[in-house]
Amino acid sequence: MTLQATLTRAMPVPEPIGSGVAATVADDIRKAGRLLPPKELEDALRTAGFARYHIHHPFHKLMNAGELTKGQMQAWALNRYCYQSAIPKKDAIILSRSEDPEFRREWRKRIADHDGEDGAAIDGGIKRWLKLAEGLDLDLQMVQSRRYALPATRFAVGAYIDLVASSSILVAVASSLTELFSPIAIGERVPAMLARYAYINEDTLSYFTPRLHQAPRDAEHALSLVTRWADTPDKQADAIEALLAKCDILWAMLDALHSAYVTPGAIPPGAFIPPPLQE
Amino acid sequence: MTLQATLTRAMPVPEPIGSGVAATVADDIRKAGRLLPPKELEDALRTAGFARYHIHHPFHKLMNAGELTKGQMQAWALNRYCYQSAIPKKDAIILSRSEDPEFRREWRKRIADHDGEDGAAIDGGIKRWLKLAEGLDLDLQMVQSRRYALPATRFAVGAYIDLVASSSILVAVASSLTELFSPIAIGERVPAMLARYAYINEDTLSYFTPRLHQAPRDAEHALSLVTRWADTPDKQADAIEALLAKCDILWAMLDALHSAYVTPGAIPPGAFIPPPLQE
Repeated sequence: MTLQATLTRAMPVPEPIGSGVAATVADDIRKAGRLLPPKELEDALRTAGFARYHIHHPFHKLMNAGELTKGQMQAWALNRYCYQSAIPKKDAIILSRSEDPEFRREWRKRIADHDGEDGAAIDGGIKRWLKLAEGLDLDLQMVQSRRYALPATRFAVGAYIDLVASSSILVAVASSLTELFSPIAIGERVPAMLARYAYINEDTLSYFTPRLHQAPRDAEHALSLVTRWADTPDKQADAIEALLAKCDILWAMLDALHSAYVTPGAIPPGAFIPPPLQE
Repeated sequence: MTLQATLTRAMPVPEPIGSGVAATVADDIRKAGRLLPPKELEDALRTAGFARYHIHHPFHKLMNAGELTKGQMQAWALNRYCYQSAIPKKDAIILSRSEDPEFRREWRKRIADHDGEDGAAIDGGIKRWLKLAEGLDLDLQMVQSRRYALPATRFAVGAYIDLVASSSILVAVASSLTELFSPIAIGERVPAMLARYAYINEDTLSYFTPRLHQAPRDAEHALSLVTRWADTPDKQADAIEALLAKCDILWAMLDALHSAYVTPGAIPPGAFIPPPLQE
């Protein structure tokens, strides 16, 4: 099945709910002290998380509308590399915090997905992200150095690492639940990018193809753990807040890109400067 | 001496040098492998650091020009509280990493400056910052919860904590050297705020008065340690990069404020929303 064909099966995009609603859900659970049944907790996670998912960010909307310059696309790919390359480290921290070999075996797949495997037919996610960067004519050494990324990108990624390292394993796993919405983002982004940016082709976007089955597999696993582990109202509220904290991280990365590369003249000192005259 | 009179003695503001120059200084030192004499290292730190200091940020320029709304000033004070309240924690980490009672005795003054002392004539810096927040009609519980701060602010503060906790003590101390330039920022900001915002008075700005002697005392101590401890070219380069990393943290905090509160409609979900019709 081609990437395009796969994507036509992606879920439709629901309307976002108002901001601020999400935090209140966790507050309400904590205050009421009533344990939600698993299905209600799942609904609360889906609703609260999707409302704050970065799919609604102006920068993604510009990207999907075909309105970003090549320089802005480069800045996105270069910054997002910092996030992509930190994922296996984040997952290794989670692995290191579990006593349960069954959990670790399942969670280890995430590391393999991003770091790749010897003799595998397809590269790991990090290499595939570099393919995207290469397709955008970025110098790969520059990308891999992470030195020209926005400081705010590095800080947001550091906050993600810190969240999984210093919180409960429930919170660490719940923070991964943004994967629930990832097929929606990919379903919007890939066809839009193929249609609206002449220099982008299916090969450049190969990162996203396996994510369409990896992300739902991972999200389902994490969701089953979170609904099982969150066995008090406080833990249920913790899980929702963890998902929102992760949404904040993804949102802040796009805020930083938008602020630096959409507003003229606002690139922080030392960060990547797109080459002139690229459209 | 009144605050205004003290400030007339503040240093004039030199022109910033071009971006990117600073990183190159550390690169050059590392590459050349030549140990700079202490005075040259000090000059390199002052030049590279000042070029990237947040005094040059558009948000500070708007503030000093009297062009921020009261809501934008509130957002600044509310977000900056996250930074102010983390300073004693940051300094306690540095304290915990030293084996030297003499160093710890000197460095401990920083904690006392911000947390205050029993029976002292003036409050600590955190309380004085809350006075500023109160003068701007902010609800202090909301400020102290840090919950309505921009996620990017919290991530930048977290990166500062992480920097001092996980790097060498040389790097931790060198990252404090932004204090070298703090009297310049205060010297610009305080008279501008008093002149251009009707609702701000000297009492509201009492945070800044003791900083005018505390910051130079602290910066001098840190500078003498850094120039002594950085006894290889690599360590000298580390020290410069630490100062730049700290400049990035301060800059990113203003980027986040500028992006959220100067651009219409760009406040991230869940963050502080200024009350309407405040000018």
